[in-house]
Amino acid sequence: MTEVIIAGIGLTQVGEHWEISLRDLAFAAIHDALVDSGGLKPQACFVGNMLAPNLSKQAHLGVLIADFSGFSGIEATTIEAAGASGGAALRQGYLAVASGMVDTALVIGVEKFTDKVGAGVEEALSTTSDSDFEAVQGITPTAQAALLMKRYIHEYQVPPDGFAAFPITAHANGVGNPYAMFRKAITLETYVKAEMVSEPMNMFDIAPNADGAAAVILTRRDLLPRGFNHSLVKISGSASSTDTLALHDRKDMLRFDTASLSAERALNQAGVRSEEIHFFEYHDTFSIYAALSLEAVGFAAKGQGWKFAADGEIAKNGRIPCATMGGMKARGFAGGAAGIYQTVEAVIQLRGQAGVHQIPDARCGLIQSLGGPASTAVSHILQISDG
Amino acid sequence: MTEVIIAGIGLTQVGEHWEISLRDLAFAAIHDALVDSGGLKPQACFVGNMLAPNLSKQAHLGVLIADFSGFSGIEATTIEAAGASGGAALRQGYLAVASGMVDTALVIGVEKFTDKVGAGVEEALSTTSDSDFEAVQGITPTAQAALLMKRYIHEYQVPPDGFAAFPITAHANGVGNPYAMFRKAITLETYVKAEMVSEPMNMFDIAPNADGAAAVILTRRDLLPRGFNHSLVKISGSASSTDTLALHDRKDMLRFDTASLSAERALNQAGVRSEEIHFFEYHDTFSIYAALSLEAVGFAAKGQGWKFAADGEIAKNGRIPCATMGGMKARGFAGGAAGIYQTVEAVIQLRGQAGVHQIPDARCGLIQSLGGPASTAVSHILQISDG
Repeated sequence: MTEVIIAGIGLTQVGEHWEISLRDLAFAAIHDALVDSGGLKPQACFVGNMLAPNLSKQAHLGVLIADFSGFSGIEATTIEAAGASGGAALRQGYLAVASGMVDTALVIGVEKFTDKVGAGVEEALSTTSDSDFEAVQGITPTAQAALLMKRYIHEYQVPPDGFAAFPITAHANGVGNPYAMFRKAITLETYVKAEMVSEPMNMFDIAPNADGAAAVILTRRDLLPRGFNHSLVKISGSASSTDTLALHDRKDMLRFDTASLSAERALNQAGVRSEEIHFFEYHDTFSIYAALSLEAVGFAAKGQGWKFAADGEIAKNGRIPCATMGGMKARGFAGGAAGIYQTVEAVIQLRGQAGVHQIPDARCGLIQSLGGPASTAVSHILQISDG
Repeated sequence: MTEVIIAGIGLTQVGEHWEISLRDLAFAAIHDALVDSGGLKPQACFVGNMLAPNLSKQAHLGVLIADFSGFSGIEATTIEAAGASGGAALRQGYLAVASGMVDTALVIGVEKFTDKVGAGVEEALSTTSDSDFEAVQGITPTAQAALLMKRYIHEYQVPPDGFAAFPITAHANGVGNPYAMFRKAITLETYVKAEMVSEPMNMFDIAPNADGAAAVILTRRDLLPRGFNHSLVKISGSASSTDTLALHDRKDMLRFDTASLSAERALNQAGVRSEEIHFFEYHDTFSIYAALSLEAVGFAAKGQGWKFAADGEIAKNGRIPCATMGGMKARGFAGGAAGIYQTVEAVIQLRGQAGVHQIPDARCGLIQSLGGPASTAVSHILQISDG
């Protein structure tokens, strides 16, 4: 199997880009990734997108983006797995290059939430849950996460401010990140006083849905351009797994089994133990997802994810730094681009280009992209390539 | 690169399945494919779907289908490339198995047009064109195909009944196919008298949008179950290509360049010359697409696709039999399932199981799945494996 190198990265600021179209947003990230790669030319384009057929009335994004980027003629397709679309697209790009059938692949994640406003956004998001048995009852992904958090709090006797460390850490890490939507630290007091959205979730327990695009260029080592002078980052593990679509079909809804399974498979493939991971970009669209992800991967014991965070273990100097550049909470959740933002940020860390966000001696990172309440989980291990 | 065998096939009748949900429809095809494969168990599921986020208010189909089919835990994702979604999903399944990273993959195409009615369907279909520069003007894919046909007729002086052979051949081939939506032969008189839909296209120049699901199981030769006794069909060529999304951006809109390019690449990979192809399952959602596809692949000269058909060369005893079991016109166009229907039908031909539809000594077939006016084209060569 061919070693897959991430040779180029590009991203746009996450935010409300009212004045920029989906294709322009995508191209901004692609342009930067191509320049960063030293001028590689992709033969295939994998687009991670979650909701454009509803939000932007636009399907067939593979062609839209390949065409607009001047790559007309190349292979292009859209990959969708709800919130895990970015991770899933990265995996398809990885498979294409690892198989030897594609030399250089472009993986672009893009989402344009501001193409729709108001209740239309929540309605679009609800298409990712079970439309016949969940959405039809009026439950939205946000309301469902609130119920999950309520159950967790009840089960493990979590105090009222028990989840505070997740957004506090994310916001602290977002300070100074030019690509983050929110770059202001918050205090415990701010968290405690915040407006309730869906009890027990307040506004800081929920990542903001926002526009964004992020891109990576995957290739083989022998195809790197002359003069390529970044530290080499490889994808050493890649795995994807599914659970039930509907939360009510699970034996234990407080376990993110797909997060466990896909992380385990990716670690096995990479030949890395979880103690060797230097940072974890988890899928913190909701604080409760962050807690359950820490438990699923084995960093925290069951029911102790919140405590692990409260004890400072997810901070930059903690046991396992998480959301190192703001995570979905502070950087913003750009739908199908989210998994590619994680990828780009991990590459920045591994190359040692993270500036104030830098995790010292970061040589191995785990990134994890979730669709729904971990109905899909896609995990990747990114490492410095010594070879 | 690992040889990829199509070890199982399953399909449902194409039609208006008001009483069957999307997941049930998908499972019916999957069940039959699994039984046909002798009991293989997939590790990955690739779902080809075109419009479910709009038609069925359901995204995240990978999980929906893997879960409902009892495969919870496996990898699953949705692949979208407009009308080429089925072909694109087959290609991702092919890449996964050919790379050696997945042992057995399930590729399922499914679409449920009857989840929406009236103008909502045409609106959903329009999301596959350029929404900012085409759909926004009110042009639908059907109206666009009519304009394309008009230009073709003007350019090549085609007589009023010049396209009749496409639907007449398709309907003749649909007779006796239990999975076809229409199983009645039509005459030239029926064609000439048919109601005009969008001038110059009458209702027989347009394939019916309808519900359907088709599935294939891909695996390696060494994993075939004991007692597997079908003739072995392999995927020997696979390629995908894109053109401009908007038709008005093309230098010559009467050339389907992606159809040429992807067929050429697939043929090269398979080491097969186009003269060695025994049948061609083209993407005949519109008669004009069929004509342009014949020209693109090189079976007919430019501007002569309609004449080639009128001369009987696409009939079962012609130079290159097309739409051998009814094509999209008579079998029906089931959106993201269309490319998998082509695949299943090609396997039936190659195994010699096609009964009244059988092409004598069929050992090599070309199938081609188009998205939009060949904005995407995915081509596959299927062959009897002698190995």
